Amino acid sequence: MADAPANDAPYRIINGVDFGEGVLVQPFTNLYGCRVGDETRIGPFVEIQRGVTVGARCKIQSHSFICEGVEIEDEVFVGHGVLFINDRRPRATTEAGTLQTAEDWPLQRTVIARGAALGSGAVILGDVHVGESATVGAGAVVTRDVPAGATVVGNPARALAAERRVDS
Amino acid sequence: MADAPANDAPYRIINGVDFGEGVLVQPFTNLYGCRVGDETRIGPFVEIQRGVTVGARCKIQSHSFICEGVEIEDEVFVGHGVLFINDRRPRATTEAGTLQTAEDWPLQRTVIARGAALGSGAVILGDVHVGESATVGAGAVVTRDVPAGATVVGNPARALAAERRVDS
Amino acid sequence: MADAPANDAPYRIINGVDFGEGVLVQPFTNLYGCRVGDETRIGPFVEIQRGVTVGARCKIQSHSFICEGVEIEDEVFVGHGVLFINDRRPRATTEAGTLQTAEDWPLQRTVIARGAALGSGAVILGDVHVGESATVGAGAVVTRDVPAGATVVGNPARALAAERRVDS
Repeated sequence: MADAPANDAPYRIINGVDFGEGVLVQPFTNLYGCRVGDETRIGPFVEIQRGVTVGARCKIQSHSFICEGVEIEDEVFVGHGVLFINDRRPRATTEAGTLQTAEDWPLQRTVIARGAALGSGAVILGDVHVGESATVGAGAVVTRDVPAGATVVGNPARALAAERRVDS
Repeated sequence: MADAPANDAPYRIINGVDFGEGVLVQPFTNLYGCRVGDETRIGPFVEIQRGVTVGARCKIQSHSFICEGVEIEDEVFVGHGVLFINDRRPRATTEAGTLQTAEDWPLQRTVIARGAALGSGAVILGDVHVGESATVGAGAVVTRDVPAGATVVGNPARALAAERRVDS
Repeated sequence: MADAPANDAPYRIINGVDFGEGVLVQPFTNLYGCRVGDETRIGPFVEIQRGVTVGARCKIQSHSFICEGVEIEDEVFVGHGVLFINDRRPRATTEAGTLQTAEDWPLQRTVIARGAALGSGAVILGDVHVGESATVGAGAVVTRDVPAGATVVGNPARALAAERRVDS
């Protein structure tokens, strides 16, 4: 692993990231305390938080946010503006009225298995497993596990049915 | 009030903002003409426009956009990628074909009351009141008022019903 | 055409863009290989990719992503956080397991006709035509053509029906 991506670009913040070989990171990114596998590409306006693992040969597209607790296996496509969640009942403050810290909620874990694709604008709730080669449609809000190879769409996301035409 | 946050960070644009004590502002932010209360934290890739008030001990997470006309009370959680709206019928130009200016539409007002939580990816239309300690689910599109303590989900957002399982 | 916008701003990346007269570009933008017409305004945290044409007197609001294959005619409003798509079946890698390149999928084309408005948080799938002066509601996921003058809302987007109240 290396401590820098394979390319150079302005306006990047990279702190304590382990990079594989040939990783490309675009401008306007905020990456810290995570691992990124070989040949993966990360677009602009992306944040990846501490403890995240991103596999090899993934594409993480612009405007996406990957939070602590998320593991992305190899060859996963994360579309533009995809948002992950790791807190089932987010609040700004504790019942005592002080700002919550990481100790104040149980961290949810999410796994996106090898070869899956998350469409642009998808929102992935915590404690979700998206199976191998599954497809999450653009704009879907994923609230439960997605079986390997399945396609889900909508809010909340459900298996693709005949009445839902994704193409025109 | 101070004219700078309590921390330092690169790639920030801060113009004419009134900050309370202990405010933390992450990199890649564009804040102007707004007020931010004590101990509030603002994530990266956030824009907050002129005239906005954000209360004390709030968390404004990454990729969110808070427009003119919005008031956020104390201890509110604004998730990642949350979008506010202040224009009921947005158009680029007037009927005369010239670019619209602020005088060309009535500014809608939105209030997020104390202790509420807006899930990641939520879209909040204008002229909406989200009540105290209410919860807006991730990815919800809020088109009308949310009562205090209520939870709404979906597009358009409705009160959480049994058929909608937020957890898996 | 000029090779720079009419204003100055920090933290912009502009490579090979043709600008009309009086174009304003905000900070934190990533624009390359595209054309932008007279008097159009582009907000912060926006990416516009190679080959895109944006017409005159448009507003492209913050956090939006406009991909290759998209043509935006004159006087179009693109809200905040709007996402376009140009790939029907996105995957990170080919069946051989190597990273996909532009040659590995058919580029979809999308046209947003003159005077249309795309609400904040809308997701526009590929191969879609949004007609003249049409309105796409905030948070809508557009999967098929939108007729001129029509209003669509929801996920998937459908023509606005009486049961859906956009205002409160």
